[in-house]
Amino acid sequence: MPLWKLYHPVGAFTPQDKQHLAERITALYRRLPKFYVGIVFQEVAKDSFFVGGRPVENFVRIWVDHIARTLPTAELRTWWIGQCDAALAPFVRDRGLDWEFHIDETPFELWSIQGIRPPAADSDDERRWIAENRPSPLTTN
Amino acid sequence: MPLWKLYHPVGAFTPQDKQHLAERITALYRRLPKFYVGIVFQEVAKDSFFVGGRPVENFVRIWVDHIARTLPTAELRTWWIGQCDAALAPFVRDRGLDWEFHIDETPFELWSIQGIRPPAADSDDERRWIAENRPSPLTTN
Amino acid sequence: MPLWKLYHPVGAFTPQDKQHLAERITALYRRLPKFYVGIVFQEVAKDSFFVGGRPVENFVRIWVDHIARTLPTAELRTWWIGQCDAALAPFVRDRGLDWEFHIDETPFELWSIQGIRPPAADSDDERRWIAENRPSPLTTN
Repeated sequence: MPLWKLYHPVGAFTPQDKQHLAERITALYRRLPKFYVGIVFQEVAKDSFFVGGRPVENFVRIWVDHIARTLPTAELRTWWIGQCDAALAPFVRDRGLDWEFHIDETPFELWSIQGIRPPAADSDDERRWIAENRPSPLTTN
Repeated sequence: MPLWKLYHPVGAFTPQDKQHLAERITALYRRLPKFYVGIVFQEVAKDSFFVGGRPVENFVRIWVDHIARTLPTAELRTWWIGQCDAALAPFVRDRGLDWEFHIDETPFELWSIQGIRPPAADSDDERRWIAENRPSPLTTN
Repeated sequence: MPLWKLYHPVGAFTPQDKQHLAERITALYRRLPKFYVGIVFQEVAKDSFFVGGRPVENFVRIWVDHIARTLPTAELRTWWIGQCDAALAPFVRDRGLDWEFHIDETPFELWSIQGIRPPAADSDDERRWIAENRPSPLTTN
């Protein structure tokens, strides 16, 4: 959690671009353990990528699953969408690429890292996971 | 929204097939702006694609996220599934391919296109997006 | 249902590994028709796969959609996560790979196999689908 999947045109991003964009996305989640943030980039050829029934070669389509936290209010949701757009902007909007993204929220209790079910939000265990940036056995249930 | 992802056997569809199938899928959403409909085709080799524990080379697996609208009644859900099957049939069923699809519904407020959060269903803004087939700043909140 | 998607490092699994792992995952769902279990393996190059903002080549990221059944209690969810980890262990943990997985639950009524909407849980139709390991027209609604 989160898992970001970015579908993008062939050659749209260099390895360095992907590295920088991954860092920007990861920084959005500064209240969580860094290692929670998983990102997969995938090139899609023009003949396999469609918007409105037409092939696209200028489009980035992103889907995200959030697990560790939910965004419970309209204000938070608005703020978060803005944060995401700002993180993406230098590599997407500012290069003239079109883009769309959407986020789903999936069940906290159906999630596991290294065989451990992650600690509750804002718990001592979570604070240790943040500090150490790796999973370790929980001390509380 | 919607996002359609089609996993299919290597070589199952020509570029022209994908174009035609994309048009048929897009036509399902005639009440929405056309550009809402995003579609990704992805080939999966037989040694990476399993059904019932056995490798498959004759199978199309589709997953879909719906965001702009929900299907609130059992009748609408039944009708919609039939519409989807009909759209797929000429390129899937009628060619002897097996197939399965499922749809999830994800939060409207966690969705953005070109940095804009899409307009409410059946609003003036949505009607303009449909007419112009492109996103533009909203006039109402 | 379920649909398992496994993102893994290039070359992490041989075709035989994937076959064995697919069988282990399929065996988790022994109460369902075998053919319900769909699995897609996908290699991700190091420069397209990030955890905590850093490229990874030792990581398996799995997401799963459950449709046919939900896990309604905390006890069942804990048990299930343990079953999944045990199924993965010989090919992931025991090889020193890192891993994370999460499961979403999506609407039963927005799902179709071979143009048929699957039978209700524990119905006669479902028992026949299990016995025959293929879909067939429903005898009840």
